[in-house]
Amino acid sequence: METKTREYLRLTDEDSDRVAGLSISLRRTEPSYCFYDDFALKGIRIDKLQPGFVSCSFTVPPRLTDRNGDLAMGAIANFVDEIGGALLHEKDTPMKVSVDMSISYLGKAKVNDELEISAKLLGGKGAYNGTLVLLKNKASGELIAQGRHSLFTKQFSKI
Amino acid sequence: METKTREYLRLTDEDSDRVAGLSISLRRTEPSYCFYDDFALKGIRIDKLQPGFVSCSFTVPPRLTDRNGDLAMGAIANFVDEIGGALLHEKDTPMKVSVDMSISYLGKAKVNDELEISAKLLGGKGAYNGTLVLLKNKASGELIAQGRHSLFTKQFSKI
Amino acid sequence: METKTREYLRLTDEDSDRVAGLSISLRRTEPSYCFYDDFALKGIRIDKLQPGFVSCSFTVPPRLTDRNGDLAMGAIANFVDEIGGALLHEKDTPMKVSVDMSISYLGKAKVNDELEISAKLLGGKGAYNGTLVLLKNKASGELIAQGRHSLFTKQFSKI
Amino acid sequence: METKTREYLRLTDEDSDRVAGLSISLRRTEPSYCFYDDFALKGIRIDKLQPGFVSCSFTVPPRLTDRNGDLAMGAIANFVDEIGGALLHEKDTPMKVSVDMSISYLGKAKVNDELEISAKLLGGKGAYNGTLVLLKNKASGELIAQGRHSLFTKQFSKI
Repeated sequence: METKTREYLRLTDEDSDRVAGLSISLRRTEPSYCFYDDFALKGIRIDKLQPGFVSCSFTVPPRLTDRNGDLAMGAIANFVDEIGGALLHEKDTPMKVSVDMSISYLGKAKVNDELEISAKLLGGKGAYNGTLVLLKNKASGELIAQGRHSLFTKQFSKI
Repeated sequence: METKTREYLRLTDEDSDRVAGLSISLRRTEPSYCFYDDFALKGIRIDKLQPGFVSCSFTVPPRLTDRNGDLAMGAIANFVDEIGGALLHEKDTPMKVSVDMSISYLGKAKVNDELEISAKLLGGKGAYNGTLVLLKNKASGELIAQGRHSLFTKQFSKI
Repeated sequence: METKTREYLRLTDEDSDRVAGLSISLRRTEPSYCFYDDFALKGIRIDKLQPGFVSCSFTVPPRLTDRNGDLAMGAIANFVDEIGGALLHEKDTPMKVSVDMSISYLGKAKVNDELEISAKLLGGKGAYNGTLVLLKNKASGELIAQGRHSLFTKQFSKI
Repeated sequence: METKTREYLRLTDEDSDRVAGLSISLRRTEPSYCFYDDFALKGIRIDKLQPGFVSCSFTVPPRLTDRNGDLAMGAIANFVDEIGGALLHEKDTPMKVSVDMSISYLGKAKVNDELEISAKLLGGKGAYNGTLVLLKNKASGELIAQGRHSLFTKQFSKI
């Protein structure tokens, strides 16, 4: 039993050379450069952009698949965070504080599947905003995930 | 406005060479090898393991920080998924289907912060199981995030 | 401090005579009769009904308001449960098992406000279904709450 | 199909006389009197009360059961809201704004089952607080539900 859990969390001596080989500098030359965001979002394209709405295309890359070969749930959570957050960025709010995120995983996405990822601003109370994010398979129309994200922005005096 | 959102989603021509340079083979030689899991979990150590409970240590690496220099929310979501899922793996269940995940982000973790990540099995109905995952700062004891994850396993006949 | 919490949970000797006076028989003459559902849903009207979609009208009654005079959050949660569940009932599934529900409270509804409560089937994996429920103020269009509900139905062999 | 949904939402002519007979006055003589809270919470007893923690006993009454004879999910949601909220009341915060609530339904409670309902303060960022609420069957120890609730209090300047 213990062995299985340890294996699942891959606590082996032979660590992946590829991860070990990632030399990610803390001294970022570009102030906005972030390896994690690049890693997680690289390849995304904005198709439609309106106040309170954004729709993007994304083809599932091998780097974001889990051990079953599906788009990893952590990667889906990252889209809910980032694509929803992009909407609030649009509203010119300097700082966001995320408070709650919830996701329903309704389907699976495989490598090379093309996804439509859209986010809608649900509105909110004062500085509190809710966003709704949908991930769909473009070819089949199947809903892969539905997420909701609650964020706060700086203008707390409005509440 | 549009420019801001596009910048936020970093739709620039100069893509990160480091991400582009990641050559992740789809022909995995090891059947269980998964770059994403290694990328997201490498460095985690199991400290305590009991039936229905696991506690791990993890030091926040630069590769998992977001543009603010904090442990990315997608990375936190991945821990909720993986550490909670490891508990069910322990129960010798061959296949898990994730259905819902929800996370409250209560604090921030910075690079080199040492975290305690623990997961507890909440129980469930038949093949449905709920897990509760906590991320704490080891030094300050501050709660960084609390997550819940609902999963199904194969034995649906039990329901 | 203790006094405040005790007061908040109204642990007074003078219990409300009206609640005490509710004589709800356990021997239900009608098999489908349920006081709680009547209490919580009475007054709701279906305006539109399509496969996978239902839209209702409801005027906030005094009986469902909390100590601030707003539609109680428990009452909103009950709508997310019942109106979402009604969609699956429509699909002729004899038994539902609820697993997860999450709600974002985005606004307030006052006594006599007329609400539009709509539910949409998000789809799902086999016997697992997700529903999305919205509560809006009809006059202002303001979103009061957005909820999501995950349910299972009996045909687990399909998973 | 339509008939089933309509029946489910009980849109019959013979409305329950008992609900119709509830004469709940809007002119509340006691300022803090609230029929809904009494209806939903009457019978609850505080067993233990500490800073950031409260534990209560509650015996499931017929008035809170759904059409299957189980403690209604809306009623469970109300406990997550109220018992969690009571903790923040204890902290002497004059106004709470609920933002997100999520619940996992892990078991069922029947009429006359005695429950232990406990709430713990998870901490938070400034005026944002998270609470964790558990409903357990006292006799069997079975977990009926686990809920999380995010609330804001008035002192937004602290954020």
